[in-house]
Amino acid sequence: MAAALATESSSNVQEMLDIEQNKSNERAQWVLNAPKPPGFWQELVNSVRETFFPHRRKFKNEHDGFNLVFTFLHGLFPILHWCRNYKASKFRNDLMAGLTLASLCIPQSIGYATLAKLDPQYGLYTSVVPPLIYAVMGTSREIAIGPVAVVSLLLSSMIQKVQDPLANPIAYRNFVLTATFFAGIFQASFGLFRLGFLIDILSHAAVVGFMAGAAMVIGLQQLKGLLGIPHFTNKTDAISVVKANFILGCSFLCFILTTRYLGRKKRKLFWLPAIAPLVSVILSTLFVFLTRADKHGVKIVKHIDRGLNPSSVHQIQFHGQHVGEVAKIGFVAAIVALAEAIAVGRSFASIKGYRLDGNKEMVAMGFMNIVGSFTSCYVATGSFSRSAVNFRAGCESTVSNIVMAITVLISLEFFTRLLYYTPMAILASIIMSALPGLIDFNEFYNIWKVDKLDFLACIGAFFGVLFASVEIGLLVAVTISFAKIILISIQPGTEKLGKLPGTDLFCDVDQYPMAVKTPGILIIRVKSALLCFANANSVRERIMRWITEEEEEEEKESSQRKARKNTQLVLLDLSNMMNIDTSGLASLEELRKTLDSNGIELAIANPRWQVIHKLKMANFVDKIRGRIFLTVGEAMASCLGA
Amino acid sequence: MAAALATESSSNVQEMLDIEQNKSNERAQWVLNAPKPPGFWQELVNSVRETFFPHRRKFKNEHDGFNLVFTFLHGLFPILHWCRNYKASKFRNDLMAGLTLASLCIPQSIGYATLAKLDPQYGLYTSVVPPLIYAVMGTSREIAIGPVAVVSLLLSSMIQKVQDPLANPIAYRNFVLTATFFAGIFQASFGLFRLGFLIDILSHAAVVGFMAGAAMVIGLQQLKGLLGIPHFTNKTDAISVVKANFILGCSFLCFILTTRYLGRKKRKLFWLPAIAPLVSVILSTLFVFLTRADKHGVKIVKHIDRGLNPSSVHQIQFHGQHVGEVAKIGFVAAIVALAEAIAVGRSFASIKGYRLDGNKEMVAMGFMNIVGSFTSCYVATGSFSRSAVNFRAGCESTVSNIVMAITVLISLEFFTRLLYYTPMAILASIIMSALPGLIDFNEFYNIWKVDKLDFLACIGAFFGVLFASVEIGLLVAVTISFAKIILISIQPGTEKLGKLPGTDLFCDVDQYPMAVKTPGILIIRVKSALLCFANANSVRERIMRWITEEEEEEEKESSQRKARKNTQLVLLDLSNMMNIDTSGLASLEELRKTLDSNGIELAIANPRWQVIHKLKMANFVDKIRGRIFLTVGEAMASCLGA
Repeated sequence: MAAALATESSSNVQEMLDIEQNKSNERAQWVLNAPKPPGFWQELVNSVRETFFPHRRKFKNEHDGFNLVFTFLHGLFPILHWCRNYKASKFRNDLMAGLTLASLCIPQSIGYATLAKLDPQYGLYTSVVPPLIYAVMGTSREIAIGPVAVVSLLLSSMIQKVQDPLANPIAYRNFVLTATFFAGIFQASFGLFRLGFLIDILSHAAVVGFMAGAAMVIGLQQLKGLLGIPHFTNKTDAISVVKANFILGCSFLCFILTTRYLGRKKRKLFWLPAIAPLVSVILSTLFVFLTRADKHGVKIVKHIDRGLNPSSVHQIQFHGQHVGEVAKIGFVAAIVALAEAIAVGRSFASIKGYRLDGNKEMVAMGFMNIVGSFTSCYVATGSFSRSAVNFRAGCESTVSNIVMAITVLISLEFFTRLLYYTPMAILASIIMSALPGLIDFNEFYNIWKVDKLDFLACIGAFFGVLFASVEIGLLVAVTISFAKIILISIQPGTEKLGKLPGTDLFCDVDQYPMAVKTPGILIIRVKSALLCFANANSVRERIMRWITEEEEEEEKESSQRKARKNTQLVLLDLSNMMNIDTSGLASLEELRKTLDSNGIELAIANPRWQVIHKLKMANFVDKIRGRIFLTVGEAMASCLGA
Repeated sequence: MAAALATESSSNVQEMLDIEQNKSNERAQWVLNAPKPPGFWQELVNSVRETFFPHRRKFKNEHDGFNLVFTFLHGLFPILHWCRNYKASKFRNDLMAGLTLASLCIPQSIGYATLAKLDPQYGLYTSVVPPLIYAVMGTSREIAIGPVAVVSLLLSSMIQKVQDPLANPIAYRNFVLTATFFAGIFQASFGLFRLGFLIDILSHAAVVGFMAGAAMVIGLQQLKGLLGIPHFTNKTDAISVVKANFILGCSFLCFILTTRYLGRKKRKLFWLPAIAPLVSVILSTLFVFLTRADKHGVKIVKHIDRGLNPSSVHQIQFHGQHVGEVAKIGFVAAIVALAEAIAVGRSFASIKGYRLDGNKEMVAMGFMNIVGSFTSCYVATGSFSRSAVNFRAGCESTVSNIVMAITVLISLEFFTRLLYYTPMAILASIIMSALPGLIDFNEFYNIWKVDKLDFLACIGAFFGVLFASVEIGLLVAVTISFAKIILISIQPGTEKLGKLPGTDLFCDVDQYPMAVKTPGILIIRVKSALLCFANANSVRERIMRWITEEEEEEEKESSQRKARKNTQLVLLDLSNMMNIDTSGLASLEELRKTLDSNGIELAIANPRWQVIHKLKMANFVDKIRGRIFLTVGEAMASCLGA
């Protein structure tokens, strides 16, 4: 009876094994009979559709004309959407944030205008029209719009090569306005054609390096401003002039930096660093006015045009030999401005948990710069420092931008005369005080720690900007970034797999040292996502070398045990390979032939959608029929069974 | 008792669950406590070591001086290795193959020399020295070395731009020899520095397109030769001259093509197409000699220098203004020649099941061209058509190349005078008859079928060569190929996973339509191997869109069932992601924050070696501690349990 039981149980076991085998075969059929993956054209159409109509589902329910227009307008002017729920309590917060913002914005705008080599009022103009337009079109609630240091530097350093601002300031200004117009056109078309991914070519590391490099350049330039060097009246009192300017600038720089330190220590005092620049301007202006220090060589701002933004439609130039160059400058400025604004916007959006639509942002930025270029504004974007102040001041919506713009407008109308005696050194110290925020040592260290090649792009951008020029810095960073992608994509990665104890999983033996190898079977996973002309041969040769090494090792071991066991089966795990090209297919076929004539079997596990389709198209599946499996585990079971 | 049993069994179940839970936790620890992956420098060192010393293990056992020299010599001259086992029976086969080869090689060499715009004897010279050198240094047994059509075209078309061959044939020839020298230097250094991957930049598709384009260009050029157009003596009998040349050329072209057709039909007649060109030469020469057709306008070869290769050491020029340009031509010729030779060598090696060492091949080719350039040879490489003849004739080793070279040498010494009356039209028809072998319509169709972007590179090369120039064609193909790599690498791929019925596997629901989704949990696999600046934002946005779509769908369904179930957990399967950069990390962090503030949990399954390391470095692991798992299955079990 025991025998009968044993027989029965063994026949049961046999049955179970058969069932298991059948299931495994069935699953192998799933691999082979997968539906056809989307072809090249279909994928192209899909990706175009996804780019241009990511929310097409929405339209299906609301396809009548009125709703479509309504949805379109809502899309273009998000203010229509949220203004219905706007309450007085929110406005109180926005008002406070807007006023704080304005107090920081007015001195910074004047300073950045001098950085862009324009008259001070142009900075103020740029803080009026663009914020108003962004307020009705933008989706970010925290971004503070206006002139920023890096874009100001970029414009002046690039346009200087076309036109010297000292020789002909009006022609220079016209070029700046034209570049602004082109920047707006580029930004708006990136958004309208949903080319948001274009600004992604500036990697995080590149932006960090670029900003730091630009900050260094600005700092070095402003040192001159702080010393009052460029405009000596007579040589005799050069030393005393430098001294006077320097002492004035430095003392207020120390004041601003101290308030920033205090503001960082106590979160409640966030308003202190925000109003410190304005306080410095007022105090230093009063000081100069009372002591008439300008008579002793302290450089002052002097006249600032009063009144609203004048029209500048006729100053934009589409003719002349430099239009192409200016359009190129506009393109670079558009990319850099968007990179800064969207980095700022995204970081605050993710803190508050709402989604920023990159394409809509670009349309908004584009329109605000186009309209800006018609109203005497130069390229505006979201400022790092002022957006942080806006956020900390508790802004609720873009209304804080409106409040700020109106405040600046009022100042333009009534208070420009008060700025007559403002010393230039103060503007330099305000600009310089904003620079440490652009140099993120912490992030430099993080990038170095995490990714050495990224760090290379980062310092490439940094030194490129510092020692060559803004464009060279950007170019270096982009080139390194893309070279890195190519390098990583084509590096012929393969890894040996072993079975994790207690599971059916097969993992990289380097990552999981506890994984166990099966003698006689070599399980190799191709790490590249793309087996292509550039890495297919290396992968094939590496696999052949794995086999040789394996055999040598076994030979060494078996010389003691006198029982040599050669590699019988090479099992390729293709889980990671998303695609294969004709060179890759040729290489696989060559591998199969070589293994075949050496008496080694080749099996394949988990080919992905595109890969199994292409293997079928190339008749490779027919050649190794029966040796394609869903998982490594099933392949092992089947091969060990046989 | 039943109750007791039930209690017991339920406590058993509880125990088992606990054990399972513990094991799962332990495995999650494996993920977190993986050894540190090789850093950037270590990987660099490893890859350099792997490139330069792939067989370092071998040296360990044989590190005494004599053995090292012996191994080195064996490595450099494979002939030392196999000649010890060389038998008479093998020699008989090689002799037959070599003679067949010579009969095809002599007319082809003369033809290709005219294609390269050199005197006919230079083609014959090139069939003497390079094959002899390759025979002692090369590892392929089937390659037939000598001048080839595409390289001849490439040299003449590129060097013509530097020096007109009609204006100064000697200067032109010196440039050709100098380019050959440079090509040899480049090839040898590719091999010595183990830069074999450099020739991989020409993808399979690019080579197919390039060869076909070059064949078309050669065909169009040779039409002129077939018509005898360029050298009219007087205008009156232009028509009759064209007629005579054309009829002669065409009839022999038909003859050669017919023999090829017969040879392909009956495998035994393989020698027929191989000797047909020689037979054509002999018959046509006899015909012209007997009828004195050259007096009636049939262009003939006339004088061919008799005797061995003369030295050309002093004709190589390292000075002068064109050296840089000629070196560039040498570089292009080196790449194209290697691409052809190694493609030929590999395809036969994989049929016979031996391994071709790409680096050794390059050293051999380099040396043969360097020595060739000193002995009046131009760039030689492995010929498609002659290697196939060699293979079919049953060659056993490179001895067939030696036999061929000696036969050509004998012809040079004794039979050149017999070629005086050989009509030029015959040479044109011999060149043209070799062209169909270069245009592989089948492969064009296969490439189109399998990979549309590869096909783009293929026709890019084809039309580039045809309508612009050889270099433009190569450049177009390489550019398209690399653009394709970037495009595929950065495309932001994500896929939704579902559970395969009857297994613990989670697979792409598009590839496996039978996979079942779990409500409330969104399992997403990132398809890109590299989450980097170029795709990180798109991936993040796509994931957010998946969530919205999922919720919309569920809303629709639940509006009937009145039981809405939102997405509670997003499970990211990172199996395919081999690496991540700082932008990718920032993007993951942003995703986590956004999900967090929407009350959705984020979990991660199967992060790879570099990725888990970088997630740890960036402190991301701490932020989602306890939600990193080895597999999707375990993550699901743990999350559903909680």
